[in-house]
Amino acid sequence: MEVTRQNFKEVLPEVCNAVQEADFISIDGEFTGISDGPSVSALTNGLDTPEERYTKLRKHSMNFLLFQFGVCTFRYDQNQSTYITKAFNFYIFPKPFSRTSPDIKFICQSSSIDFLASQGFDFNKVFRSGIPYLNQEEECQLREQYEERRGQMNGAGPVSYTPPSGTGVCNVPEDQREFIRSVEEKVEALLKNTDQTLDLEPCTGFQRKLIYQTLNSKYSKGLHVEALETEKKERFIQISKVDDEERRRREQQKQQREQEELNDAVGFSRVIRAISKSGKLVVGHNMLLDVMHTIHQFCGPLPEELDDFKEVAMTVFPRLLDTKLMASTQPFKEIIHNTSLAELHKQLRQKPFRPPTTECPEGLQSYDTSTEQLHEAGYDAFITGLCFISMANYLGSFLTPPKSHISARSKLLEPFYNKLFLMRVIDIPYLNMSGPDLQPKRDHVLYVTFPKEWKTSDLYQLFSAFGNIQVSWVDDTSAFVSLSQTEQVQIAMNTSRYAESYRIQTYAEYLQSRQKNTHSSRKWASDGWADTSYPSVAMTTASGYSHTDNWHQAVKRSISPSLDEQNHGADSSWTNYSVKKIKTEGSCTQTYADVAGSCDWPRLQADEGGASVSPVAEEAELDEFSANQSQGKRSRKHKKRKSDASETTPPALFDVPQVW
Amino acid sequence: MEVTRQNFKEVLPEVCNAVQEADFISIDGEFTGISDGPSVSALTNGLDTPEERYTKLRKHSMNFLLFQFGVCTFRYDQNQSTYITKAFNFYIFPKPFSRTSPDIKFICQSSSIDFLASQGFDFNKVFRSGIPYLNQEEECQLREQYEERRGQMNGAGPVSYTPPSGTGVCNVPEDQREFIRSVEEKVEALLKNTDQTLDLEPCTGFQRKLIYQTLNSKYSKGLHVEALETEKKERFIQISKVDDEERRRREQQKQQREQEELNDAVGFSRVIRAISKSGKLVVGHNMLLDVMHTIHQFCGPLPEELDDFKEVAMTVFPRLLDTKLMASTQPFKEIIHNTSLAELHKQLRQKPFRPPTTECPEGLQSYDTSTEQLHEAGYDAFITGLCFISMANYLGSFLTPPKSHISARSKLLEPFYNKLFLMRVIDIPYLNMSGPDLQPKRDHVLYVTFPKEWKTSDLYQLFSAFGNIQVSWVDDTSAFVSLSQTEQVQIAMNTSRYAESYRIQTYAEYLQSRQKNTHSSRKWASDGWADTSYPSVAMTTASGYSHTDNWHQAVKRSISPSLDEQNHGADSSWTNYSVKKIKTEGSCTQTYADVAGSCDWPRLQADEGGASVSPVAEEAELDEFSANQSQGKRSRKHKKRKSDASETTPPALFDVPQVW
Repeated sequence: MEVTRQNFKEVLPEVCNAVQEADFISIDGEFTGISDGPSVSALTNGLDTPEERYTKLRKHSMNFLLFQFGVCTFRYDQNQSTYITKAFNFYIFPKPFSRTSPDIKFICQSSSIDFLASQGFDFNKVFRSGIPYLNQEEECQLREQYEERRGQMNGAGPVSYTPPSGTGVCNVPEDQREFIRSVEEKVEALLKNTDQTLDLEPCTGFQRKLIYQTLNSKYSKGLHVEALETEKKERFIQISKVDDEERRRREQQKQQREQEELNDAVGFSRVIRAISKSGKLVVGHNMLLDVMHTIHQFCGPLPEELDDFKEVAMTVFPRLLDTKLMASTQPFKEIIHNTSLAELHKQLRQKPFRPPTTECPEGLQSYDTSTEQLHEAGYDAFITGLCFISMANYLGSFLTPPKSHISARSKLLEPFYNKLFLMRVIDIPYLNMSGPDLQPKRDHVLYVTFPKEWKTSDLYQLFSAFGNIQVSWVDDTSAFVSLSQTEQVQIAMNTSRYAESYRIQTYAEYLQSRQKNTHSSRKWASDGWADTSYPSVAMTTASGYSHTDNWHQAVKRSISPSLDEQNHGADSSWTNYSVKKIKTEGSCTQTYADVAGSCDWPRLQADEGGASVSPVAEEAELDEFSANQSQGKRSRKHKKRKSDASETTPPALFDVPQVW
Repeated sequence: MEVTRQNFKEVLPEVCNAVQEADFISIDGEFTGISDGPSVSALTNGLDTPEERYTKLRKHSMNFLLFQFGVCTFRYDQNQSTYITKAFNFYIFPKPFSRTSPDIKFICQSSSIDFLASQGFDFNKVFRSGIPYLNQEEECQLREQYEERRGQMNGAGPVSYTPPSGTGVCNVPEDQREFIRSVEEKVEALLKNTDQTLDLEPCTGFQRKLIYQTLNSKYSKGLHVEALETEKKERFIQISKVDDEERRRREQQKQQREQEELNDAVGFSRVIRAISKSGKLVVGHNMLLDVMHTIHQFCGPLPEELDDFKEVAMTVFPRLLDTKLMASTQPFKEIIHNTSLAELHKQLRQKPFRPPTTECPEGLQSYDTSTEQLHEAGYDAFITGLCFISMANYLGSFLTPPKSHISARSKLLEPFYNKLFLMRVIDIPYLNMSGPDLQPKRDHVLYVTFPKEWKTSDLYQLFSAFGNIQVSWVDDTSAFVSLSQTEQVQIAMNTSRYAESYRIQTYAEYLQSRQKNTHSSRKWASDGWADTSYPSVAMTTASGYSHTDNWHQAVKRSISPSLDEQNHGADSSWTNYSVKKIKTEGSCTQTYADVAGSCDWPRLQADEGGASVSPVAEEAELDEFSANQSQGKRSRKHKKRKSDASETTPPALFDVPQVW
């Protein structure tokens, strides 16, 4: 169902209802772009740490607009053995709702816009009829504004009768005295004649304030004073003769109207709050960016530190499941080789999987999976849910006796909770939202810095003696080089000692120097890209979340990174990893193996666990990356670097004849 | 006529033709926003110097996209006494044309987008069918890419036969040897069998390079090698058996195809180049932003210094005329009280003006002025031209004998050439593009800095002893305060000497400290707003313009600010102004009075000249400001500041009872 500004108010109760009844909810977002700085390949470096990835996405992806949001609710009907689905496709746009509302600026990336255009995205619908939204802080500000303005009115409440210590009242400036005198005359005339109301000429805000003040002190009992707008949007004052009761009634009406205006302004954020409040399982495909954007846009600014983000995210969405991570993990990774949403959906309709039966209640437009509407957020949310069900039910086949339906609350699914797919990271499959992240050994990795003219081929040249290497570009002048054997690291380090044009560090050294930078500056260390942080977009710069809603209390809790009681990593099957020790309050950080072990599921105790992700075609992954980059665009520079050979030959690390 | 990517190629010759034949050309642009930093009221401070205004617009307005461009050509038909008009409404979008093309990021301002949406702007058309464009530097880069790639091909040119000093050729790496060997085998087979062509499997860019290289050295004579794309956009190599002649023919075809691709990519910039080349009079309404955006987007990055910008602009558009400035100047300012485009157009259809008769050639959609299509760039350009004609013809009524038609080349118009309206500047009506700017005395102006809690009312309070004052906000903590009498300045300065919470400087002191800052840092001084400069949008960071087109030679010319031979200001009627002395090469900087004096036009020798602009309603002016801000939005803070009274009373400057 398409939801715009026109039908939002009408549809909202239905959405909230569907969320309340759901067994789980799937979501998907479409954005106006991916990266406002580095190329996508640099934004998703294969050797990013989780902290680095988060920092980069927070810095370079949040200034885009999430302008279509898909929500699909799934409720299992035991009697019919079918899922009742309700899909909503929301168009989102921060239409300024009044003169004083925030005027959001957002960035568009041409390639993303072009891609969405090619998919038939309806930009007119989003910009003409998008649903507005406010984050927490903006809502509070608006509420305060209403209250402040109410305080100026006469007859409204106690405030207007007792201006605080006199400073709120201003003297009438000389050039306004004549104006105010003429208003008083008109009011006197009104009181004497039989008219019920008097409309003054449009005037300035300051003049309106003076009028309120004057009438308040002179005629506080018999008049109702209200600012209205002409058709030309000019504000004028209407004065009505009323008795006390009538005045109270009018004030109440006005307050109700204002409350409604406020609700309208909060707009789509109310949907997110309903989902959050429900505490239901929220399913997405490659959903890290969706989660980040959702919080950034509808709740409040993202925290600087990854650990704080995890806490906030877990309070907004206490249970997340990423179908891309699920499909890339045992037992699915053996069977599923392309985890892009479209391909995954195709494969999960074939054996050994079974597509779930779904039903859409009458009156709600349902999606037809035979006519693909990929990259419409509502459709993508819908098929993400279908993928989840197919995979969940497949897990049931391992039980004794096998089960054909697995509930969204099943213990079998717990290993997949709160682990978000980390795109293109070579050796860390997921971001662990409810606990410490994996820390793979990177002893075979070198960090190399060099002149900006260097290309990939120059690095191959430099390391030509070592056989296969893997290059992950960090920025214009540095890259990670993974050697095939850890023993080669020391040889490379020794030999490079006197090099002038380049410099080699071990990964450990690199981490250390990075940490030093971070701590000395108390800011996230530079990620090698120009600082394009963009204050206007992040309207709310204060990091404080208000306490009005449940999720915001989490931010205030501090986590102490030195405590390490809950290190579940040691006894898990992630034998290749040391687990970073942070304390996560309360929430149990079960590893995949923990759960697998406890649920009678021997085949899942695979020796490799879910650690290594099945190789996925790079193009397909890019396609996943919020679906906007399927053409695999890179900056001209990076592209050139990879396809061309070097023009200036770098020094070979060893005296080995040129072999390539 | 609507022009999109679909019909651009077909329409372009007609556009160029119309430009060639025109007496003058009117233009208008629509942008995705106005300011990515300060509120519009701060962006257009009433006491900006021309340099400050330029710097602010360059910094805060150029990251938006000019996405609709209107061009209307006007040719006077002597026989019919009518203007033949051809209006074109171009949709512009930087669609990336290949994997390696720049991926432009641009900002959208919600209020602007919302305003355009309310005017029926077709966002789908712009994003789905917008015409692409390249600036000079991007075009050069693309050309180089083509040439580089051609160099890799065999048989193309001399480069491929003699790789420069061997470094361009790379050895075949070990892991590619088997691959290359298999290609060689296939080629050997092709040469022996009867097939004409051989399609290899898709492969990487590096592999393609190796193939070119290998085949080049082994079979340079009998084969044509070409990279093609599959339907899935994978690149593969096709090898054909050809004789020398056939190979040359193919290469030529290919070059032609590439040239066409290049032209397509340059796209809309070709229209701007045609207009520029024609040297015709270009008319716009409140056109400073249009000119800046046009140069920034289709020519190259805007220079840092205003004087350099003037030079570039005058080379791109050697003759500009701003109808808003014209309407705000004698003899029009007495008759025309609202200079917003829509109102101006209305007034110019009434006495004493006469609407011109126009005619639109068959087959070209003409605009109907009775059904307003305001804020469609093509329509706005059209009525801007109509306004210009009406005003020009009105000038003819002052001649003896009066003339009813005044040509666009008439001397009568020269006073208006190259003077662009400076929006909302109190005492400088225009930016003088072809000479030094006016420097009004600002002896009655104070520069006040204060805590950020202060509001306008606090300033009124502070200066309450001085009667009428005028406040122009600079940023959160400073403002200009214009006193009604210059003598008050010294009193204010003396009294404020021991103030702690605020600080007062004379305007001269302010200028001096600003200049100091400018020179010490060799950058434009801070305009009081956070630096949101956004490197990704300005794709081309190098400031160099290439020399391929006429306008780019101007930038390289240096202007020496110390020379002052051509100070035309002294003998002009701008008696209130000292003229800033800069040298402008060649172009004569005639002042309004110079020309008025020389053209037998006594009523124009008005004592006030064109210096003070007729009072224009603020809302109407905002509407003009690229037409996107008609709701007069301001940041919440600024709005609040102006409508509310102070909560904390600031110290009164003098011990005078509170009078306002």
